Amino acid sequence: MNILLLNGPNLNRLGKREPNVYGTDTLEDLESRVTEHAKQHKAAIVCRQSNVEGELINWIHEASADAIIINPGAFTHYSYAIRDAIASVDIPAIEVHISNIHKREEFRHTSVTAPVCIGQISGFGFDGYIMAIDYLIRGNEA
Amino acid sequence: MNILLLNGPNLNRLGKREPNVYGTDTLEDLESRVTEHAKQHKAAIVCRQSNVEGELINWIHEASADAIIINPGAFTHYSYAIRDAIASVDIPAIEVHISNIHKREEFRHTSVTAPVCIGQISGFGFDGYIMAIDYLIRGNEA
Amino acid sequence: MNILLLNGPNLNRLGKREPNVYGTDTLEDLESRVTEHAKQHKAAIVCRQSNVEGELINWIHEASADAIIINPGAFTHYSYAIRDAIASVDIPAIEVHISNIHKREEFRHTSVTAPVCIGQISGFGFDGYIMAIDYLIRGNEA
Amino acid sequence: MNILLLNGPNLNRLGKREPNVYGTDTLEDLESRVTEHAKQHKAAIVCRQSNVEGELINWIHEASADAIIINPGAFTHYSYAIRDAIASVDIPAIEVHISNIHKREEFRHTSVTAPVCIGQISGFGFDGYIMAIDYLIRGNEA
Amino acid sequence: MNILLLNGPNLNRLGKREPNVYGTDTLEDLESRVTEHAKQHKAAIVCRQSNVEGELINWIHEASADAIIINPGAFTHYSYAIRDAIASVDIPAIEVHISNIHKREEFRHTSVTAPVCIGQISGFGFDGYIMAIDYLIRGNEA
Amino acid sequence: MNILLLNGPNLNRLGKREPNVYGTDTLEDLESRVTEHAKQHKAAIVCRQSNVEGELINWIHEASADAIIINPGAFTHYSYAIRDAIASVDIPAIEVHISNIHKREEFRHTSVTAPVCIGQISGFGFDGYIMAIDYLIRGNEA
Amino acid sequence: MNILLLNGPNLNRLGKREPNVYGTDTLEDLESRVTEHAKQHKAAIVCRQSNVEGELINWIHEASADAIIINPGAFTHYSYAIRDAIASVDIPAIEVHISNIHKREEFRHTSVTAPVCIGQISGFGFDGYIMAIDYLIRGNEA
Amino acid sequence: MNILLLNGPNLNRLGKREPNVYGTDTLEDLESRVTEHAKQHKAAIVCRQSNVEGELINWIHEASADAIIINPGAFTHYSYAIRDAIASVDIPAIEVHISNIHKREEFRHTSVTAPVCIGQISGFGFDGYIMAIDYLIRGNEA
Amino acid sequence: MNILLLNGPNLNRLGKREPNVYGTDTLEDLESRVTEHAKQHKAAIVCRQSNVEGELINWIHEASADAIIINPGAFTHYSYAIRDAIASVDIPAIEVHISNIHKREEFRHTSVTAPVCIGQISGFGFDGYIMAIDYLIRGNEA
Amino acid sequence: MNILLLNGPNLNRLGKREPNVYGTDTLEDLESRVTEHAKQHKAAIVCRQSNVEGELINWIHEASADAIIINPGAFTHYSYAIRDAIASVDIPAIEVHISNIHKREEFRHTSVTAPVCIGQISGFGFDGYIMAIDYLIRGNEA
Amino acid sequence: MNILLLNGPNLNRLGKREPNVYGTDTLEDLESRVTEHAKQHKAAIVCRQSNVEGELINWIHEASADAIIINPGAFTHYSYAIRDAIASVDIPAIEVHISNIHKREEFRHTSVTAPVCIGQISGFGFDGYIMAIDYLIRGNEA
Amino acid sequence: MNILLLNGPNLNRLGKREPNVYGTDTLEDLESRVTEHAKQHKAAIVCRQSNVEGELINWIHEASADAIIINPGAFTHYSYAIRDAIASVDIPAIEVHISNIHKREEFRHTSVTAPVCIGQISGFGFDGYIMAIDYLIRGNEA
Repeated sequence: MNILLLNGPNLNRLGKREPNVYGTDTLEDLESRVTEHAKQHKAAIVCRQSNVEGELINWIHEASADAIIINPGAFTHYSYAIRDAIASVDIPAIEVHISNIHKREEFRHTSVTAPVCIGQISGFGFDGYIMAIDYLIRGNEA
Repeated sequence: MNILLLNGPNLNRLGKREPNVYGTDTLEDLESRVTEHAKQHKAAIVCRQSNVEGELINWIHEASADAIIINPGAFTHYSYAIRDAIASVDIPAIEVHISNIHKREEFRHTSVTAPVCIGQISGFGFDGYIMAIDYLIRGNEA
Repeated sequence: MNILLLNGPNLNRLGKREPNVYGTDTLEDLESRVTEHAKQHKAAIVCRQSNVEGELINWIHEASADAIIINPGAFTHYSYAIRDAIASVDIPAIEVHISNIHKREEFRHTSVTAPVCIGQISGFGFDGYIMAIDYLIRGNEA
Repeated sequence: MNILLLNGPNLNRLGKREPNVYGTDTLEDLESRVTEHAKQHKAAIVCRQSNVEGELINWIHEASADAIIINPGAFTHYSYAIRDAIASVDIPAIEVHISNIHKREEFRHTSVTAPVCIGQISGFGFDGYIMAIDYLIRGNEA
Repeated sequence: MNILLLNGPNLNRLGKREPNVYGTDTLEDLESRVTEHAKQHKAAIVCRQSNVEGELINWIHEASADAIIINPGAFTHYSYAIRDAIASVDIPAIEVHISNIHKREEFRHTSVTAPVCIGQISGFGFDGYIMAIDYLIRGNEA
Repeated sequence: MNILLLNGPNLNRLGKREPNVYGTDTLEDLESRVTEHAKQHKAAIVCRQSNVEGELINWIHEASADAIIINPGAFTHYSYAIRDAIASVDIPAIEVHISNIHKREEFRHTSVTAPVCIGQISGFGFDGYIMAIDYLIRGNEA
Repeated sequence: MNILLLNGPNLNRLGKREPNVYGTDTLEDLESRVTEHAKQHKAAIVCRQSNVEGELINWIHEASADAIIINPGAFTHYSYAIRDAIASVDIPAIEVHISNIHKREEFRHTSVTAPVCIGQISGFGFDGYIMAIDYLIRGNEA
Repeated sequence: MNILLLNGPNLNRLGKREPNVYGTDTLEDLESRVTEHAKQHKAAIVCRQSNVEGELINWIHEASADAIIINPGAFTHYSYAIRDAIASVDIPAIEVHISNIHKREEFRHTSVTAPVCIGQISGFGFDGYIMAIDYLIRGNEA
Repeated sequence: MNILLLNGPNLNRLGKREPNVYGTDTLEDLESRVTEHAKQHKAAIVCRQSNVEGELINWIHEASADAIIINPGAFTHYSYAIRDAIASVDIPAIEVHISNIHKREEFRHTSVTAPVCIGQISGFGFDGYIMAIDYLIRGNEA
Repeated sequence: MNILLLNGPNLNRLGKREPNVYGTDTLEDLESRVTEHAKQHKAAIVCRQSNVEGELINWIHEASADAIIINPGAFTHYSYAIRDAIASVDIPAIEVHISNIHKREEFRHTSVTAPVCIGQISGFGFDGYIMAIDYLIRGNEA
Repeated sequence: MNILLLNGPNLNRLGKREPNVYGTDTLEDLESRVTEHAKQHKAAIVCRQSNVEGELINWIHEASADAIIINPGAFTHYSYAIRDAIASVDIPAIEVHISNIHKREEFRHTSVTAPVCIGQISGFGFDGYIMAIDYLIRGNEA
Repeated sequence: MNILLLNGPNLNRLGKREPNVYGTDTLEDLESRVTEHAKQHKAAIVCRQSNVEGELINWIHEASADAIIINPGAFTHYSYAIRDAIASVDIPAIEVHISNIHKREEFRHTSVTAPVCIGQISGFGFDGYIMAIDYLIRGNEA
């Protein structure tokens, strides 16, 4: 099983940014952890991050993965273009948020991308990504 | 680790109700599966379901579990009383939805209970419950 | 033909409550009248009333009737749980309101339950129930 | 008892228009059926249809009936002029809709005319008109 | 000076309709009074009433008057077509309402036609028309 | 007949302020004109202007006039205190606006004071005040 | 004088729940204090608490008290059914909130039950109940 | 190919009305131009204009054309009755606006009729009609 | 204990104004009653009323009381300046309303000043002030 | 005549994406067709597509064309930056949408870019681009 | 150059009020600092503060300055009367806020006065006033 | 002191675009002026402009400046991603707008980025940037 992990804007700042919200681990820590976890389950994972909306869209278009795990960051709340990109490919996607977006500012309660994903996982820190991988692997094995 | 699993209104109709939305497995299937899964990880799980808001509140108050997994069903969208109940106990809670609520009717996009939970998992079928259990066990082991 | 008649919160106060809105006849009067009317058309009707949302949901789930006539009272305007309950059974339902809800406070103009019913009858006093029964019988005879 | 039946815009297209929403019977079928039904109960019914808002208003003003049954069609949702017309005569009116307007597009959920009618019947096909007639006759006999 | 007086839907019911809101004088009384008043000031007035939006629009287009006094009735609140008609002729218009629309239902507080008129007079009964005529004559004399 | 004329905030700037909206005549011109006009009809008028909301309220409370003509200026759109003041005295009031408030910024379309007045006159320049006086005198003579 | 004191959902958690919002005293402390206070003024008070909306409605219906003091908890913000229950009995009711609901989350600023009560007391801790009792006793003595 | 061209309210004022918005050419100019253009492509076009909503509805119902081109004028923004009329016939319709409605007043940005048309052309002057005809002819030839 | 009692706009009209809403007792009656009541509990009370927002703000700034009781009248609904004034002093404040503001016009349901007060008392007539005093004295004694 | 054709995000997925909405032809097909069509009318067209908002803005700035035809894709609904870019150049622009955006999700009904374009064409498939070209050429020839 | 500095409601409480928001320096400190700064640049500044809306309006009317710097305090968010006052004089005005109003409560995000000022400076403490003075002097020198 | 100056989308069009709104000076003029001004105060300033949202985010992340001055252009109104970027670095930021955004279209009145900046300066042309620099230098010297 091949998984594409996309992290959106500002997630390269993980560990350096608002640690009270996002914790002190970095994007590298996250990517190591998920890669390791995937490998243990015989899955391969490609990790990418960009602050450019269009670059995320390009990666979605070009993806040859069995599934996409995406944390669209702040794009979650307004990027109908990423929504359309996910809808335009046949690869199932899972939306992950590190913090519980329902607990934060009003504008973060709404996701324009979730309606075109399988589902959304929000509030479990880095574990949210692990939960998404486990879900995909479980489905793959079934 | 002791987990209390609460399923809210109409979830006793699982497998009998709108199978295109919720699948054909029943609540008993769900409870068997999560009980089995918990046991494999040396966790105990108590499963309860009610269509009565106040009964769910009572169970939350009386809970002696380490964590609560709750699918509040339609109460998700208006029961500030359940929200207050969760906030009134020191037990962490996880909100689970079988279907992707962000894909359905407008009124299902908003959760009044999620802001007092650790996080929300939506759209992964029965697997959402498994993901919640795994998250709790992982935290317990750490 | 078997009909289940469900009256929701405060309808047990009929005849005792705001007579300028609801008239002076009681719930017992209503139930006698509809029972009598059904019998004349060779239909059987079971009458139940509850102020507890979850109890109404339970009765909907357990119903073995050919049709449900329901006056959800104030639950009409917020009980997505009752809406889901009606949607979860294969029994057609008709929503009845004694007063014309479109004439009253703004919050009474919207029904969250009507979209999952065959239709809604509002403003004809107790006659609204009779109209619902006649509709069902007519369909049954056809 | 004399009844005036008014059908508003596009109801002359019944049977020819969106049969999945409105069925295959025509306006003539409807008018025959209600005329027949009224006659059986010794009531007379005059049937009129117009696509012109002002013509409907004129007919309401000129009505010498004991009651009006009106399906204002799409005017239901914006014609404050028809609302005022109904309020300007002393003849009680009943609003009927063939389809369940609460199930359809958002803009069809609100009626600006219902607040000046006795009540509203929505979702019972042609039977809705029969129910209105029966209600009027029952009241007449009482 | 030539004035065209247009009264919109249901104003032919004046005196017969909701006397607590509109008084007991009829449209004929109103038209006599304004005609008389105009004559005293050497102005001629043509009085027309219609319940048909398009007929009012036609009359506005065909008007050869120096000014229009219009009470659009309920059309005030939604007829952008009448608004456009007034804007499409070079004849100044005055909007008059018999009752104080700001005191009544919420939907009557907004006028879509007033922005293309010289001004609006609301709440002075039939006198509102007299006030409009006096204003026009005064301007004519100046 | 005794009339109290109240002009609210910034109306002392008439003739000096935004002449394209309000013309070039001053408050003194206005007061002379209405005083003269009233005198011709054997009415007395007291003219007051204030930029202080509370002062206007005080004058309303202390008024011993038969009627009040008030142009509340920008207070029209938010001073519930002036609204309450008008409602607290038994003296009928007329609201006048020099410009057509329905043509201007969105916030000027709503009047919180008009619902407690006899009516509103808007858009006729200084003539609006004359129209109000004429209405009062006409009523007085009747 | 007989008073019925109703405490709604989660108020059984008083003293155990969010002490920074509600203080450390328990429901038992509250009930003792009000019972004692009432007794001193020769009034009897019956204290009840429930997390079940329908049970509160039942108690309101069955009440044989001279007055009801009710803290509907989170039901304050959506239970139109409790609102209708209060309106359906002839017993005057007072709404009490321990915390100042106007200071908290947006959804707590609106009360759907207050419009059918004598008045609302919010923000005075347990003293709010004492204030309600004193008000009732004072009225009783007058 | 037979085309029915319907122009709605106030379009008979073209060339006479607000030339800065609509230009100086008249409805006759428009109709000549489209007739000529259609003829060159061997298509026949019938041109009609009405200020009466119901008349436009009648023409839609009675149309025996292969396609309808409609500029509903101000009805675009509120006539759900015209929307229903278009939906009630099997003839494809194209909505045309002379001016760019998205550039004008807020209320002109929304079309209630466009959702039942093939598409909408807005802002190209009379050329918008030509574009619609060309589209239809091209489809016819294919 | 020293208390400053502030009554806002139009409260000087008490007893003279809308007696069905506010009763027939005057401001003097109110001030006598509260002064008497305070004296009985060894508290001193200074009573002030103003229709001028800025004067109320000045009095709040200059207050040397232990507590403020304020009925901001209509300023309750829009005076962010009074809100800021209360927030700018270290003296606890209680908001009192004679009528039940939750029962009246929509605009009276919201208080912009309550969030910076200890709490709000609404609907108990003059007794509301007594309740506020009692609360303060009780706290003082404790 | 030189035309710049800009296609926004996800339009490179044409023919591969949601064929029920957008058809099976690809972007290359579209570009060939418009290039061919332009050539036949002696116009030159440069075709560009990007998923990066800023790249589209750069191309607009650098354009040396006589006109721009732009399908901003999902950017239509939120990119005020593209709106400003179009407004910042002196080149007229036409907005084209392949599907009828007025028929789709609510968020697609509003265009933030259309107000700075000549006009908008929506719902005619690839033909919409042809219609835009024809319009430009016709204007060029005139 | 002559500058009029107006500080609105509660700014006399500076240094005494909510120091975490506004700092510990007083209004006198502010006025000394700006006077000193102006003097250094050969400008004269007159400083005034009032809690009375009408007094601020009067000062704006009577101003003989070359420019006004105004911090309308809470009036920023609702005083259309101050807005009109600024619009009614030919003196350019600058709006200053000590705190960053965009960071605070929702109601502070909107300014009704800024649209009639040159611009707005928000969030720079007392320095905001210095920045406004520097801007004016720079323009004066140019 | 090192300052990073970021100009967002379309600001490279300064001087070439809508001169009535933005003046005729170019971005180069702006950058020269601020560089010169900074140098005079012994501060260094790096100037960058991009139309790509993600590039601005990258520059914010990589900034090694003591402060950021940012004019986010149209991104101000929807880029939650830039907001998060500013919040993710420890460098204080100042938001500057050349035109008075409060005077322009409704959508420009709201800033999603201002809440994470020190403050906002709007309406002072290029001087706004100078004011920001002066503020920073003043703070640096203190």
